Amino acid sequence: MMNPTQKIKAGILGASGYTGAEVMRLLLRHPNIEICFLTADRKAGQPVQDVYPHLGGYGLPDMISVDSAPWDDVDVVFCGLPHGTTQEIIVGLSTTLKIIDLSADFRIEDPATYEEWYGHEHFAMELQSEAVYGLTEFNRDEIKNARLVACPGCYPTAVLLALLPLVSAGLIDPHDLVIDAKSGTTGAGRGLKQMTLFSEAGEGLSPYSIASHRHAPEIEQEIAKSIKVPAADIRVNFVPHLVPMSRGELITGHVRLSPGKTVRDVRAEYSAAFGDEPFIRLLPEGAVPQTQMVRGSNNCVINVFDDRIPGRATIIAAIDNLVKGSSGQAVQNMNVMFDLAETTALEQAPLFP
Amino acid sequence: MMNPTQKIKAGILGASGYTGAEVMRLLLRHPNIEICFLTADRKAGQPVQDVYPHLGGYGLPDMISVDSAPWDDVDVVFCGLPHGTTQEIIVGLSTTLKIIDLSADFRIEDPATYEEWYGHEHFAMELQSEAVYGLTEFNRDEIKNARLVACPGCYPTAVLLALLPLVSAGLIDPHDLVIDAKSGTTGAGRGLKQMTLFSEAGEGLSPYSIASHRHAPEIEQEIAKSIKVPAADIRVNFVPHLVPMSRGELITGHVRLSPGKTVRDVRAEYSAAFGDEPFIRLLPEGAVPQTQMVRGSNNCVINVFDDRIPGRATIIAAIDNLVKGSSGQAVQNMNVMFDLAETTALEQAPLFP
Amino acid sequence: MMNPTQKIKAGILGASGYTGAEVMRLLLRHPNIEICFLTADRKAGQPVQDVYPHLGGYGLPDMISVDSAPWDDVDVVFCGLPHGTTQEIIVGLSTTLKIIDLSADFRIEDPATYEEWYGHEHFAMELQSEAVYGLTEFNRDEIKNARLVACPGCYPTAVLLALLPLVSAGLIDPHDLVIDAKSGTTGAGRGLKQMTLFSEAGEGLSPYSIASHRHAPEIEQEIAKSIKVPAADIRVNFVPHLVPMSRGELITGHVRLSPGKTVRDVRAEYSAAFGDEPFIRLLPEGAVPQTQMVRGSNNCVINVFDDRIPGRATIIAAIDNLVKGSSGQAVQNMNVMFDLAETTALEQAPLFP
Amino acid sequence: MMNPTQKIKAGILGASGYTGAEVMRLLLRHPNIEICFLTADRKAGQPVQDVYPHLGGYGLPDMISVDSAPWDDVDVVFCGLPHGTTQEIIVGLSTTLKIIDLSADFRIEDPATYEEWYGHEHFAMELQSEAVYGLTEFNRDEIKNARLVACPGCYPTAVLLALLPLVSAGLIDPHDLVIDAKSGTTGAGRGLKQMTLFSEAGEGLSPYSIASHRHAPEIEQEIAKSIKVPAADIRVNFVPHLVPMSRGELITGHVRLSPGKTVRDVRAEYSAAFGDEPFIRLLPEGAVPQTQMVRGSNNCVINVFDDRIPGRATIIAAIDNLVKGSSGQAVQNMNVMFDLAETTALEQAPLFP
Repeated sequence: MMNPTQKIKAGILGASGYTGAEVMRLLLRHPNIEICFLTADRKAGQPVQDVYPHLGGYGLPDMISVDSAPWDDVDVVFCGLPHGTTQEIIVGLSTTLKIIDLSADFRIEDPATYEEWYGHEHFAMELQSEAVYGLTEFNRDEIKNARLVACPGCYPTAVLLALLPLVSAGLIDPHDLVIDAKSGTTGAGRGLKQMTLFSEAGEGLSPYSIASHRHAPEIEQEIAKSIKVPAADIRVNFVPHLVPMSRGELITGHVRLSPGKTVRDVRAEYSAAFGDEPFIRLLPEGAVPQTQMVRGSNNCVINVFDDRIPGRATIIAAIDNLVKGSSGQAVQNMNVMFDLAETTALEQAPLFP
Repeated sequence: MMNPTQKIKAGILGASGYTGAEVMRLLLRHPNIEICFLTADRKAGQPVQDVYPHLGGYGLPDMISVDSAPWDDVDVVFCGLPHGTTQEIIVGLSTTLKIIDLSADFRIEDPATYEEWYGHEHFAMELQSEAVYGLTEFNRDEIKNARLVACPGCYPTAVLLALLPLVSAGLIDPHDLVIDAKSGTTGAGRGLKQMTLFSEAGEGLSPYSIASHRHAPEIEQEIAKSIKVPAADIRVNFVPHLVPMSRGELITGHVRLSPGKTVRDVRAEYSAAFGDEPFIRLLPEGAVPQTQMVRGSNNCVINVFDDRIPGRATIIAAIDNLVKGSSGQAVQNMNVMFDLAETTALEQAPLFP
Repeated sequence: MMNPTQKIKAGILGASGYTGAEVMRLLLRHPNIEICFLTADRKAGQPVQDVYPHLGGYGLPDMISVDSAPWDDVDVVFCGLPHGTTQEIIVGLSTTLKIIDLSADFRIEDPATYEEWYGHEHFAMELQSEAVYGLTEFNRDEIKNARLVACPGCYPTAVLLALLPLVSAGLIDPHDLVIDAKSGTTGAGRGLKQMTLFSEAGEGLSPYSIASHRHAPEIEQEIAKSIKVPAADIRVNFVPHLVPMSRGELITGHVRLSPGKTVRDVRAEYSAAFGDEPFIRLLPEGAVPQTQMVRGSNNCVINVFDDRIPGRATIIAAIDNLVKGSSGQAVQNMNVMFDLAETTALEQAPLFP
Repeated sequence: MMNPTQKIKAGILGASGYTGAEVMRLLLRHPNIEICFLTADRKAGQPVQDVYPHLGGYGLPDMISVDSAPWDDVDVVFCGLPHGTTQEIIVGLSTTLKIIDLSADFRIEDPATYEEWYGHEHFAMELQSEAVYGLTEFNRDEIKNARLVACPGCYPTAVLLALLPLVSAGLIDPHDLVIDAKSGTTGAGRGLKQMTLFSEAGEGLSPYSIASHRHAPEIEQEIAKSIKVPAADIRVNFVPHLVPMSRGELITGHVRLSPGKTVRDVRAEYSAAFGDEPFIRLLPEGAVPQTQMVRGSNNCVINVFDDRIPGRATIIAAIDNLVKGSSGQAVQNMNVMFDLAETTALEQAPLFP
């Protein structure tokens, strides 16, 4: 453990986005962290108050451009930049700097898959090979020693927490995974899009990116790795829906149980996998996860139910997409990387109602 | 066709509920209908203004108790009563009175299934055997001559419109139907429930009645009938979710295509089935149905998409649960029963935003 | 009255905005209107389905650029263009064409006031002098003979309906008008603004444009006219708030009664002023107007209440900002201009819930 | 200051209500507090998980009935009971027990006023005379030595924070206070009411309790006290509105400046009054308070603006009604009463979006 009086110095890239703001919110309560700089190119020179009024009055530094970031002053940077831009920036940074990337830039291991889904050649494949996939509960040891952690996408976080233990234990068929996913509007970021205007998203429900969402190959990659088959062997159904709420993400997994297996076996496996995890909560039998149960927290609630079709089950998991699905998991990873108590700054109970 | 100057006289039972109010809203614009009485036992004596202020000023009659309903004055009654109460009331009515039931009382044909799901013996099985299932697009001829029409549940309406043509045509596997359903809060009615308080349902997403929703056996019954197998042979996955919106319902069907069949075949079948239907709209290829597209209207928008898992497809349909999913379909059925133009009073374009 | 078989031909400028879409929705139900063209420069060539999916399937023409509008083919144009752009376009049109402007371009009579609030010299003052302010209930006679009608802003519509009768009758002090206004997000249009993203406006309440909203001088102008004083003599408090709903507008007027006057006098005046009005509804004593009572309709609900401060009263009025506050009033004005029944296409009861 | 290893023992009465849950949420992060019991008569015997699923897994005790509360085991109780019930319960408790009441039971000093507004004679006037009004920023010294603290209502909290300094300093006219207030639905509690159903409150705005809200006499009492006049001398306009959001409260004060005074003077007074306050933040000139800026936090944001009517000003303040407006202020008061750092457990930055 660190000397408690010594502060880790952190910078946040892309601090004007929602994930950047959420890293700030969490780190403000972290006793071992000092926030040294915030970058936001188009807002450079502005105080935090102007960009995120709710964070005014907390003594945070003004926004600066990424070009003027004092890299040498910090121990760790959180990167909340748009996809594709992190690669170019961090490739030139000191190798002693720890990097926690919240974008998709280092999540996909196969260059061809990356290029297919993100539309351009990867700019920093040598860094990619070094990156550790930051799903904390499953990769803790690698994260501990990593320099570059690629935090999972919000959907993959919920999906993999719910499915990886079952796939690994052979409880469900990895070739019949139907994932019906639902997210609040913050999942689409703070950028201006017609689809996420209040007048468009309010009082409505919109499926989107059906069978074409970038989180599908990420999910497939990790499921394939867990059972040691090529990524191309796994194809999942993945249909996300935009829900008229700001925060929250819930995945409904419609799965086929392996012959002879039951939801009781699934619950037992969850208990084994997550019994000691501080943030993953298997609900009591019959209790249904809701996004309301995790809002603002790093928690994931999870449960499994019998399907009416014999041999099938329904798995439900809910997270806050901006916390466990992004910035909270990033801070959790930072705690692991710096040998701090993993729950530091993440203990706040959910906000409900 | 009716003599245009002669008005059909209608009564509405359970006018204080949302479906009752929606029947009123629609009938107010119907040139051939006169609303003669409204019942609402606990509100008897109150003007409409006190129960539904938005309907004040339209000259509607005051609420009365069901006991004092002048049955002989009307040609048709719409029943928006709580499940289980319609049976007892209508069993004693004149057989010349047309009855359009919006409750679940006459939807389930098998008495044992009814008793299993609704918790009591059916009180009017002889009427049940006479009831026609009011999914207009598929049962038009029977509806035309029916005395008693049992309007489908809101979820079954969307599910059956989307799946029946495909199951009937052998395009999809009826034994692998995964239906992930989403509804606004009006689906739960105007009764006071903690789950539908704004503070509880807002900013959140809640699955409910997983594998235990009463609309599942209704869906199974109709699918089984369409392929002439016993209802017990069909079991569907059905997982509904409560969405923080008032109106709207969307179902995401994750289905397995029959060998050799493609989404192109599905689109062709939809075109054939619905090409002449005034309220069912197959969207252009790639266009995704949203509940926003149908709000306040009797329309159903529908489309089909390739799944990432070969041989599977994703089907999406959206309706307004209070219109096509309930009161609008009821009015549509009334138009059929009285030989009026089927679209009368239902032509209003959706309200968006 | 028109020959019922002869259709008035209409064009809609700026059909991709919310007010344009709402004019479409309403006119689709108008028996005397044929929609001949829709302009939307950046969407030119696109079918309505791509711009407003909820209006697909109704046989509307594709979007065209305003440059290619066939002006000679139409009898009337509805202008839903951004403020400042209508002036330049319509200045060159045939003087036999009727123009119903939904923008602010012709609302302000005084050129200096216009320039002060809209940031540029007026481009078509000669048309301005011809324009009639389209608050139907108060200017019916002028509207009947007008070529160019400037429809009021959404806030002024609600405010003036509520206050003009009282100011004119000397029941309240025109120099102590405190107007606390609330609007849904559609009031800000379909343009992309950070403030109206779901994630920003949801679960929150935001005052804006305090004492600096462009609707303030418009309100002052009309109040001043009604009591024949110079506009500069009237200054109103006007504080609008953005509410997390799409549609709806409610104004809370905190007013000072003239000596000896009571809320009973105010109710009597409202009865006198609005007793014959089809769209203005004085609620029963004690009943509180809500936006839910008017959604999707051209109605305005209104009432008055005692204040705790002796000699003061609270006035509340609610409208749907896109209907009575904009497109519905525009259609109402068109009905007046073409000598049609004023309620044509506007009879639909409100949508609730 | 307390011995840091020694925990204060607390009980929460009415733990099944929203304010009770919020006290739990906050105290879970309090290093000096141990939650010993939770009462909820109708939920007695249930685990917290069943009543508030988001608080499951934190080791809280099961609900018990108030009759079985082990009063001797605790140092302090938070009372979140319905109005009128706290009086009877606490009248019999040991006088060494500190009581922090979140209900209205001890807010009104004058028995006749209490009876007029709450509909029954006060049951414990001797306790009333001992109660300290818990508006922390203004009554810190009395709170420090109080046994019984009556926490202010949510609206009075925001109103008094904004107005008391100005009234006390003679900057505004205490006889011309127009307070247009807006609140989310949690202000109405978790009880089942038609008005707060999602389907009723969503997509709408509803004024309520116009000139008849119980918070009006509470505001008047405190304003009168601050300028040492009888409560009956002060009458405020107070019109609350229900906003479709769960949390958050914003008040818009339309006030008359004293002759010669300006908004600059108001800002200076706020700076003087709140410069050292940890939770009250005067925003930069021109920045508009929004409820989004304080969600989940104990903060109050405040600002003042010129009115268009000369000599008037608009004052805006926003709080989270469940935190600063209720449970947060209660914890703040507890910190004061037990000589702890006042911000303990209340440091969490707001949750946005």
